[in-house]
Amino acid sequence: MQRQRARSRDLRIGLLQAGYNVVASIPGDIYLVERLTQLQPDLIIIDAESDARDVLEDLVMVSRDAPRPIVLFTEEGTPSQLEAAMSAGVSAYVVAGLQVERVKPVLEVAVARFNADQKLRTELSETKNKLAERKIIDRAKGILMEKHHLSENDAYQKLRKQAMEKNLKLVDLAQRILDVADLLG
Amino acid sequence: MQRQRARSRDLRIGLLQAGYNVVASIPGDIYLVERLTQLQPDLIIIDAESDARDVLEDLVMVSRDAPRPIVLFTEEGTPSQLEAAMSAGVSAYVVAGLQVERVKPVLEVAVARFNADQKLRTELSETKNKLAERKIIDRAKGILMEKHHLSENDAYQKLRKQAMEKNLKLVDLAQRILDVADLLG
Repeated sequence: MQRQRARSRDLRIGLLQAGYNVVASIPGDIYLVERLTQLQPDLIIIDAESDARDVLEDLVMVSRDAPRPIVLFTEEGTPSQLEAAMSAGVSAYVVAGLQVERVKPVLEVAVARFNADQKLRTELSETKNKLAERKIIDRAKGILMEKHHLSENDAYQKLRKQAMEKNLKLVDLAQRILDVADLLG
Repeated sequence: MQRQRARSRDLRIGLLQAGYNVVASIPGDIYLVERLTQLQPDLIIIDAESDARDVLEDLVMVSRDAPRPIVLFTEEGTPSQLEAAMSAGVSAYVVAGLQVERVKPVLEVAVARFNADQKLRTELSETKNKLAERKIIDRAKGILMEKHHLSENDAYQKLRKQAMEKNLKLVDLAQRILDVADLLG
């Protein structure tokens, strides 16, 4: 507990010296999610003696809709703790490295890491979306081709035209066609 | 230079204490790429006084075919250096944090980070592949439908059947169809 208090003090000094504004210092209790949702901090720092798995799970939940860098300072890290932290999206996992003068560079690296990571995750989710949309549009196109004996290109043009007329995204119109086709058998 | 030498010594002590085997210690000169290609180390550590951009570019080149964790110990990091390091795929960027007892945890975190990152990158490249393959197969299907007046499903079945007969992946057969269609106009 003595060590935890000294570390917490070093962390606060380092943050102040680096010009960061400490919005709040809150315990990892059952109110954590609620408080973070209210506070909406730019960055989250976890100061953990050892295992912080419960806190991490809470943070993942809060961060799903509003991703932000998470920095974890700890005294030790087993492989399974590390793996859990990485898949929870922790941007910096710092073992035994909390010295006043290192707080600023650690946070800067964490932010750069977070940004690079977000870029990758955004690209992944966009690519997944494109693939999913293409499947839906293809299936809708297939239904039109079969029902109206259209060529692929004619079916696609028909879809596009109707989407424009109804002011819908192509994929949304395609999804409606699938929904109705399912209903009508 | 004095500081660089002290840091390099601490790094080696830390690596030995942590049970790592130092395969080689090589300068960041024009032979770097060649040497790394020969050595194929499990992990690369860069000990850089400040800017290591040239070395990083070389490492990216070597790592493209054989990705591996890269740890960078440095005394400072400007935002643009950080960004360059992140997009080069550096797994740990440690500013002013080279103490003997921290080498082991830093490397462990770097490996966990690298693994999590690779998982994401693999998922991204697989999803991109799927999307690209789907586009190729769709275009080939479209060509068959037009040439032979087939329904979408018949065109797809024809493709599948021929791919099996020729012992080709569906996408490879589709690509051949596109190649030939381009040639024949």
